[in-house]
Amino acid sequence: MRPLLLAALLLAAPALAQPAGRIETAVRLRDAALAANPAWPLLVDLTDNVGPRLAGTEAEGRGRGWAKAAMQKLGLTNIREEAFPITVWERGQEQASIIGSNHRLAIAALGGSGATPATGITAPVSCFDNLAALRAAPESEVKGRIIFIDHRMTVTQDGSSYGINGAVRRAGPALAAQKGAAAVMIRSLGTDYHRNPHTGSTSFPAGTAPIPAVALALPDAELVARRCAAGRLEVKLISTPTSRPGQSANVSGEIPGSVANEVVVLGGHLDSWDIGQGVFDDGAGVAITLAAAATIKAETARTGQSPRRTIRVVLWGSEEIGVVGGRAYAEAHRQEQIVLAGESDFGADRIWQVGSRVAEAGVPLFGEIGAVLAPLGIQPDAGNKAGGGADVGPLAALGTGVLSLNQDGTRYFDVHHTPDDTLDKADRAQLDQNVAAWTAAIWLAASDDRPLRTK
Amino acid sequence: MRPLLLAALLLAAPALAQPAGRIETAVRLRDAALAANPAWPLLVDLTDNVGPRLAGTEAEGRGRGWAKAAMQKLGLTNIREEAFPITVWERGQEQASIIGSNHRLAIAALGGSGATPATGITAPVSCFDNLAALRAAPESEVKGRIIFIDHRMTVTQDGSSYGINGAVRRAGPALAAQKGAAAVMIRSLGTDYHRNPHTGSTSFPAGTAPIPAVALALPDAELVARRCAAGRLEVKLISTPTSRPGQSANVSGEIPGSVANEVVVLGGHLDSWDIGQGVFDDGAGVAITLAAAATIKAETARTGQSPRRTIRVVLWGSEEIGVVGGRAYAEAHRQEQIVLAGESDFGADRIWQVGSRVAEAGVPLFGEIGAVLAPLGIQPDAGNKAGGGADVGPLAALGTGVLSLNQDGTRYFDVHHTPDDTLDKADRAQLDQNVAAWTAAIWLAASDDRPLRTK
Repeated sequence: MRPLLLAALLLAAPALAQPAGRIETAVRLRDAALAANPAWPLLVDLTDNVGPRLAGTEAEGRGRGWAKAAMQKLGLTNIREEAFPITVWERGQEQASIIGSNHRLAIAALGGSGATPATGITAPVSCFDNLAALRAAPESEVKGRIIFIDHRMTVTQDGSSYGINGAVRRAGPALAAQKGAAAVMIRSLGTDYHRNPHTGSTSFPAGTAPIPAVALALPDAELVARRCAAGRLEVKLISTPTSRPGQSANVSGEIPGSVANEVVVLGGHLDSWDIGQGVFDDGAGVAITLAAAATIKAETARTGQSPRRTIRVVLWGSEEIGVVGGRAYAEAHRQEQIVLAGESDFGADRIWQVGSRVAEAGVPLFGEIGAVLAPLGIQPDAGNKAGGGADVGPLAALGTGVLSLNQDGTRYFDVHHTPDDTLDKADRAQLDQNVAAWTAAIWLAASDDRPLRTK
Repeated sequence: MRPLLLAALLLAAPALAQPAGRIETAVRLRDAALAANPAWPLLVDLTDNVGPRLAGTEAEGRGRGWAKAAMQKLGLTNIREEAFPITVWERGQEQASIIGSNHRLAIAALGGSGATPATGITAPVSCFDNLAALRAAPESEVKGRIIFIDHRMTVTQDGSSYGINGAVRRAGPALAAQKGAAAVMIRSLGTDYHRNPHTGSTSFPAGTAPIPAVALALPDAELVARRCAAGRLEVKLISTPTSRPGQSANVSGEIPGSVANEVVVLGGHLDSWDIGQGVFDDGAGVAITLAAAATIKAETARTGQSPRRTIRVVLWGSEEIGVVGGRAYAEAHRQEQIVLAGESDFGADRIWQVGSRVAEAGVPLFGEIGAVLAPLGIQPDAGNKAGGGADVGPLAALGTGVLSLNQDGTRYFDVHHTPDDTLDKADRAQLDQNVAAWTAAIWLAASDDRPLRTK
């Protein structure tokens, strides 16, 4: 109860040193965004006419062209593209089958993984329930084998199961490589039972040569687990990705503020995995934050008044392959007073929670934000320990305050990083609720003067 | 209300010329099957160790070997394999992309369709809402084009939407071929929004050369429809299936009856499509009917008494490619008194309805069956016009009576003919309800002496 009571008190408090009408304007902007905003047509256009946008490829570049044109059309200014180098990893042929049967396995190579010969490899499979079991296994059970890791991920509203299980994908292949494995198959980091494996990045530390590593769709993982339990199992695996040096970039555009050097950042990431269409991850975040900025821009155009702080939409590149764009952005802008930042990168479903990580003096702002967002079905997370999204992490580490608008993740890991990440998964009404929340929260932060940076 | 009242009256009627205890035994067998039956392990074994079983391939043959071994183990006798010739159609490479984008389309070639060159074809797409629109189109809109048909299929409990929309898949490609189309893409005959297209057979009449024909997953069909509506669209299509003469067979096994030449048939079909694992279609029907026969066999072994009529499990081959096994079976057995037949071929979900098509004198039997099945949540279909399943159709045309145990099809067309037809889709409790219903219904029919044949 306390946060809501606090919010009610703040709304009534006459002592707040804020311009009259800030909250009334936030409410009006929230409702305007709910009634009409450009997120849906932006998402359809990005999906249909750009399509999947793998980091460092021509398609991601077309995504940047699309983003700059969209920003211009929506009235943003100071539109910039800031390049950085990356390693471009591209999927090759991929195929897996159980020897002595006609079972083909539905697989997707993990980003950063190594390649088999074009003709593939055939090896016995060693099965492990989780990373700890692989870690504990003697080398003799790993060496020359194809390793299968069958950890189970649970549906969670807040996505916490991804954090818990993520190490299997990120570190499992390297651990197996260090023990001499020929290749790795993991049960997808996902919660759906469709023949759509979940890709995503893995990594190998310096000195460990990448080995082939793929994710199995859940039905296929369970088939392998049953066959493993029943006896010896051999798999033939073909996966022929390539890696090369390349380039990516972040794109940004602004609604300039009336004071110098105070910036509020919102955005999503432009890159996506190649096997879906990049809607839930993260076309939605791109469309939501652009649409929120457009709603505020329309207000400033109508009144002729700038927001106090500059509002900047940043569309990061190459998030999927290790938050490369987010790191490059923080590094390039470390001298700037980015007072608050938030990323929309958890699909297109409703926001259910708002959180912060800001200076103590800025906490009351989140009382105001909570009160304005409550009618959207959003509740405060009172801990002042929010994360803000992957690309915001490097900014937050440098002292930028954090805004988290947490989306319901119940079905996120059915879709994320799979071929199923397509437009039909987005629900227009839920998308609009997101835009309304971002519009009101960003307006309140940008029209405020309380300190938000943590250092 | 009437059918239930009728059933209650029948249960109470002292005038019925039936051996005492028939219904009590049916109730006992029903409950025994609910408590324990071998359907689940049979389905797991068929799925894991045989896998998908395309008509005419080595895998279908392994399915027959599996079936004969299962029948022997379950105590069936007179185990037979009856061969017939078919055309074996096998999938080749398949790939489709929208020109000028990096959109790959999730496709599956339709059984019986023709091939593109190995390098594919590229052509503009003409889009039609349904078969009638294609029929009405001038040749100039079809000739040399890739035709897209975007009919919409609805979820129905009884599967009736498949009948309504089926012509698009079965006859659409031939119609387009006759108008000079280069190839056909249809929106999958399916109800799920996953990147899993629904395959299935199409056919070309004599004199019409097969052209390439593929189904698009629903997300991809909607992308094509949106791009089509927005302007000119070109697609590159590769699909290289092959056709050759080959052979398939039906497998059967019996619980011999005490009277000569009265046979009750139950069964499913052994073949499946290649892209899934043949669980819902129709491993489940195979496992359900084998398990029902095994439950009755255990009863006859315990009492030492045969059923009155012979109970025969028939596992048809090559249903998917045009009910070839069902037709061959009816032709080969046209001299036999198969008094009643029913097929389980609509997935693994609960039976909700029991129907008949039998001689008038046999209708009261279905009152008894209805009463025994009612506690399983099964209601009577009073029309005496049931179909009995695809492979039963040719027998019914020759006068065999029909038993239909209709499964809930609400999610059937999410799975049917797709890569998603995997074991995890089957629910063990629902499978057991099926076995209980088949066990009781077949027992009641086999222990009865009323005429059932319609001619």
